[in-house]
Amino acid sequence: MELLVSCPRSRLFLWGACPLNLGLSMEGRATVSTPAALPYYVAFSQLLGLTLVAMTGAWLGLYRGGIAWESDLQFNVHPLCMAIGLIFLQGDALLVYRVFRNEAKRTTKVLHGMLHVSALTIALVGLVAVFDYHRKKGYADLYSLHSWCGILVFVLYFVQWLVGFSFFLFPGASFSLRSRYRASHIFFGATIFILSVGTALLGLKEALLFKLGAKYSLFEPEGVLANVLGLLLACFGGVVLYILTRPDWKRPSQAEEQALSMDFKTLTEGDSPGSQ
Amino acid sequence: MELLVSCPRSRLFLWGACPLNLGLSMEGRATVSTPAALPYYVAFSQLLGLTLVAMTGAWLGLYRGGIAWESDLQFNVHPLCMAIGLIFLQGDALLVYRVFRNEAKRTTKVLHGMLHVSALTIALVGLVAVFDYHRKKGYADLYSLHSWCGILVFVLYFVQWLVGFSFFLFPGASFSLRSRYRASHIFFGATIFILSVGTALLGLKEALLFKLGAKYSLFEPEGVLANVLGLLLACFGGVVLYILTRPDWKRPSQAEEQALSMDFKTLTEGDSPGSQ
Repeated sequence: MELLVSCPRSRLFLWGACPLNLGLSMEGRATVSTPAALPYYVAFSQLLGLTLVAMTGAWLGLYRGGIAWESDLQFNVHPLCMAIGLIFLQGDALLVYRVFRNEAKRTTKVLHGMLHVSALTIALVGLVAVFDYHRKKGYADLYSLHSWCGILVFVLYFVQWLVGFSFFLFPGASFSLRSRYRASHIFFGATIFILSVGTALLGLKEALLFKLGAKYSLFEPEGVLANVLGLLLACFGGVVLYILTRPDWKRPSQAEEQALSMDFKTLTEGDSPGSQ
Repeated sequence: MELLVSCPRSRLFLWGACPLNLGLSMEGRATVSTPAALPYYVAFSQLLGLTLVAMTGAWLGLYRGGIAWESDLQFNVHPLCMAIGLIFLQGDALLVYRVFRNEAKRTTKVLHGMLHVSALTIALVGLVAVFDYHRKKGYADLYSLHSWCGILVFVLYFVQWLVGFSFFLFPGASFSLRSRYRASHIFFGATIFILSVGTALLGLKEALLFKLGAKYSLFEPEGVLANVLGLLLACFGGVVLYILTRPDWKRPSQAEEQALSMDFKTLTEGDSPGSQ
């Protein structure tokens, strides 16, 4: 049972000061009502994400001979790992603050960090696969725009994780420091995700053109399937960004503290961390 | 001479209610102080934008024989028009509310709309060029991921312009209706811009692979130049989005009205349009 307390439609509301309905659960924990449409958008994002991973697998299975580490099929580990790690898991990691609105902030943070670690680890396997494949075949590395963007994504992602960990999970950083860094963390997180989707599209296009060449214009089934996969990638990126940026879907800042006035000093001295 | 009135560091500030310094110019018009770093970021974005347009021209001139309508060079009109229209001008159209902070809202709106019309018109010339070139050569249309994304961008861009015009420039729409639509307009505007940049990267990659093929891996000068152009495109997109999304750089909502209390009813009844 929840006791919901709505803010009055006053001047404060005008300024975005009261976008949330705070309540107290029976256990005494502050809770925040979930916007009605949010679960549908989240479900849609997951449907898109899982479909794009499955379609990547289907593309590799149907038209590229499947996956194996110790053979010519090693290359195929690369697109599958990137679709799972740098697209699906990275996208989901961005959404945890919207989805788990009523969990403790610390729990949500740990989940956010762990999803990013999983994404980075799986993507690293994909990176090793392609470099190892190139080495065995004697192919050149890092000549294409896809590879340049890919390395940029890895460097930015790793730095973002390190800095994010230092500020938000490591206990040393002050409340005020976290607050000032938060907006940059969110912007760069979204940017790295967009760049990951763009890099995946470039890689998909490269793989298609290297194999199909002029046959691409004949609407070969593989080309059409890969085009649909490309649109799915773009749509997944768009829906994740929509959920992430919609102002009234943001996780209210420290709901527990606002409701229970646990830290009045922070509220009156402008040291609030804002919302994630 | 400006009389700057800073808001007190109070609870209101916490909620983001007072991110601006309002002042009155000698003519009695309300002005808003410009954040110190904003002009540098805007200048950097323009440097990136002009460089990417110049580099597109250089690429077409040095490696593709230049530009002409009535010859095999007609294709080259396509990338140049898209770089000018759908990348540079579209990006600049998104920035006008940040750059012209002290102009009247209506003037800024008209400039925003006109920049988008220019972008769309130039992009249409680029679209006609490629379809006309394909027709003359007997090539297939709309088979690639680049072309699918490109058509999607055109449809979304046109719809966004029409809806935006109806809500914000056509006098019929109410203040309240504009306010509710604003967040969607901004999100879809940014999304269409990101999709435009992604589509340009796909097109660049396609043009490179069709011509260079396996020679791409030999670090041919054209390949390296095009890769740098691709990174420039991505960086321009990133800087524009940074300026657009940085919370404290948003154009304060109806600064004149807030400062001069021209519409007190709006302020007290929650019908403010928010900031663009």
